[in-house]
Amino acid sequence: MQLRRADVLDGAISILDEYGLGDLTMRRLATSLHVQPGALYWHFPNKQTLLGAIADHLLTDVDAPPTRAGWDEQVRELAHRLRDALLSRRDGAELVAATYASRLTTNRVRERIAAVCIRAGSSRSDAELTADTLLYYVLGQTVDEQSRMQMDSVGALTEEASPLFESPDSTSRFDFGLGLFIDGVRHNLGASARL
Amino acid sequence: MQLRRADVLDGAISILDEYGLGDLTMRRLATSLHVQPGALYWHFPNKQTLLGAIADHLLTDVDAPPTRAGWDEQVRELAHRLRDALLSRRDGAELVAATYASRLTTNRVRERIAAVCIRAGSSRSDAELTADTLLYYVLGQTVDEQSRMQMDSVGALTEEASPLFESPDSTSRFDFGLGLFIDGVRHNLGASARL
Repeated sequence: MQLRRADVLDGAISILDEYGLGDLTMRRLATSLHVQPGALYWHFPNKQTLLGAIADHLLTDVDAPPTRAGWDEQVRELAHRLRDALLSRRDGAELVAATYASRLTTNRVRERIAAVCIRAGSSRSDAELTADTLLYYVLGQTVDEQSRMQMDSVGALTEEASPLFESPDSTSRFDFGLGLFIDGVRHNLGASARL
Repeated sequence: MQLRRADVLDGAISILDEYGLGDLTMRRLATSLHVQPGALYWHFPNKQTLLGAIADHLLTDVDAPPTRAGWDEQVRELAHRLRDALLSRRDGAELVAATYASRLTTNRVRERIAAVCIRAGSSRSDAELTADTLLYYVLGQTVDEQSRMQMDSVGALTEEASPLFESPDSTSRFDFGLGLFIDGVRHNLGASARL
């Protein structure tokens, strides 16, 4: 039976869910699919390309048009959608952070955030830098949040360091930083801001 | 000859420099030091603790008192010091990001940033959340910047994706996001801001 691209992707996601990103190797994936490693390379020329495809799968619809009114609410909506997608799967944040560096994801959430900023009155170059800043904050925050949840679940954190005992909770903490970012964008827009 | 803690740390940093974080395992470290793995565990009970010690080494003096005047310049100074330290060593950003989650570093840069915010007029809880937000931005940005430099050096990026062709340059991009963050903090301080 012929190995389809979707089979390889499904197999990779199963390994990710069960063993984590550190154990997702082309060799292990080939073994789990009962094929030679060469069969994988026909669909994905290297591991980075495979990770890019998993990132695309994880981020499906994160870059859909925002539904709320007002640029600040739209930025909030996109940031929360991205965070939810990253946290939805084991090691999701780390995987997307690694893939983002290779620019191999086809997801356009960065362009979507930049478009919201342009409509709010930003120049194109400022809008792109603003989108990068937000992505870095969301990636930095979710990588930390997810690592701590996973460490805690295997008992690798002391009780004081456990996210379960943290106040305010992680979503409120995320919103605080998001609020700082949006206030900075508002200041930067200044007199050029549109509603 | 007795294996000292400093020898283990030096050996780990050598592997990091030469092969990267992905190849830094306790087994490999033991082999390079010509000892049994058990000898390492006498100094470091697990790999996380070892990574924490490397992070401490990387971040030496990042948490020293800021030298500039004004809270905004002090935040800038601390953020740049942290970025420089993370970029100073192969995989430094990724290593510190991973270690930050386990809260095993003894470096107090987070407390230093929070202290600057408290002197600027923040409440203690806002100051801590502000420090976290800045750390997440710096970690997210430097992990991406360093990954891209390393990918580019092995030819794994297309020419358009190469950081060498990016405009503005990476330090200006970092400063843009830092400026957004500082403007947000200023807005948040509002009438309570002190100079």
